[in-house]
Amino acid sequence: MRRTTGTEIERLIQLLAKLPGLGPRSARRAALHLIKNRDTRLAPLTEALAETAAKVSLCSSCGNVDSTDPCTLCRDDRRDHSIICVVEEVGDLWALERAGAINALYHVLGGTLSALEGRRPEDLNLARLFERAAAPEVKEIVLALNATVEGQTTAHYITDRLKPTGVILSRLAHGVPVGGELDYLDEGTLTAAIRQRRTL
Amino acid sequence: MRRTTGTEIERLIQLLAKLPGLGPRSARRAALHLIKNRDTRLAPLTEALAETAAKVSLCSSCGNVDSTDPCTLCRDDRRDHSIICVVEEVGDLWALERAGAINALYHVLGGTLSALEGRRPEDLNLARLFERAAAPEVKEIVLALNATVEGQTTAHYITDRLKPTGVILSRLAHGVPVGGELDYLDEGTLTAAIRQRRTL
Repeated sequence: MRRTTGTEIERLIQLLAKLPGLGPRSARRAALHLIKNRDTRLAPLTEALAETAAKVSLCSSCGNVDSTDPCTLCRDDRRDHSIICVVEEVGDLWALERAGAINALYHVLGGTLSALEGRRPEDLNLARLFERAAAPEVKEIVLALNATVEGQTTAHYITDRLKPTGVILSRLAHGVPVGGELDYLDEGTLTAAIRQRRTL
Repeated sequence: MRRTTGTEIERLIQLLAKLPGLGPRSARRAALHLIKNRDTRLAPLTEALAETAAKVSLCSSCGNVDSTDPCTLCRDDRRDHSIICVVEEVGDLWALERAGAINALYHVLGGTLSALEGRRPEDLNLARLFERAAAPEVKEIVLALNATVEGQTTAHYITDRLKPTGVILSRLAHGVPVGGELDYLDEGTLTAAIRQRRTL
C-alpha cells in the first residue's frame, strides 16, 4: 500500500487490528469512525483507556480485574464465602455473573495447563487457589472450567491436589444446552445428557 | 447484570462496543485483552488515539483524513493532478489506494444523496468539488461511487452539474469481479458484463 495517510492513523489502525475480533478491514473502519466522531467517540475512548490503565489491576486474592484490590466480588458480604468457583479467564467469570449462575467467590486461573503450549502449574494462579482452599471457611470448590481437553486436564490436576484436604470438589454438569436441539449436538454431549438424566 | 467490575472497565466496554464491527461480546474480549496487556496494547492505543485527536483533520481540498492539510495525496507531485477520482467515503479512497488502481487526486463526498435519509447536496462535500472541477488543469472526473441506488443517484447529480463545464466525466466499469464465478453473480452484473464485453 502506498502511503496515503498520516503515520498517526496508520499506527492507530495497526493497534486496533491487534484487538481480538477486529481484522485489518474492521480496524480501518473503526479508525475512520473514531476520527469522524472525535468528540463523541475518540475523546471518550482515549479517556476511558487512560482511566483503565491508571485504576484497574488484578485482584490479589482471586485474579479478577477491578479498580479495587481486593475486588468488588471478594469484598461482597452478600456472597457465599464458603464456595469458590474456579474459572479459566476473567471472561468466564463475567459470563457466569451475567447469568447470575452462582452467588459465590471466584478464582481466575489465567489459563489452563497445556503440555503442548508449555503452560505448567506454576504459570497459572494455582498456588493462591490452594492457599484459599485451605481456609477453614471454604467448604466447596466448583471447577467451572471449559469442557475442553485442556480445561479438563487442569480440573484433574486441581482435583488431585485438593482431594486430600477434604474440601468438596464439584464440576459443571454436562448436558443439552437450554434451547439446544438434539439434532445439532455432538455424541459426547448427548451421551452425557442421557447418562446424567434426571427423574421427574 | 450485577455489578462485577469497576465502572472504568464497564465504561471502556461500552465505548468499545460502539465501534463498527465490535458487538458487546467482542467489546468485552477486547477490553480484557487491553487490560491484560497494559504495556504492549493499552498504553500504545491510548497514545495513538491521543495523537490522532491532536493531529488528524480533514483535508480542506479533498476531504481525506490526514495529519497535514492539504493531505499527503493532494501534495503528491507524482500524481496526475488532471484527474479527480470522486468517492463516497475515506474508506473507499483507502481501498482504491491499496489496489493502486489510480494515480490521481481524490475527492471525498462524505456520503451520498438520499431522499429517504434527508441528505441533500449541501450536506455533502460537493461545492468544493465543483470548484475544483472548474480549475483549468483538471481534465477528468472519475465517479468511483458505489453501484447502489444512492451512489448512482449522486453520480447522476454530479454529472448533470458538471456536464456543461466540458470536463470529461467517467464512471467505474461494471462487470464480473476478478475471481468471481458467474453462477454466483446477480443478473444486473451479468447483463452489464455481456453488454460491455471486450473483443480479444
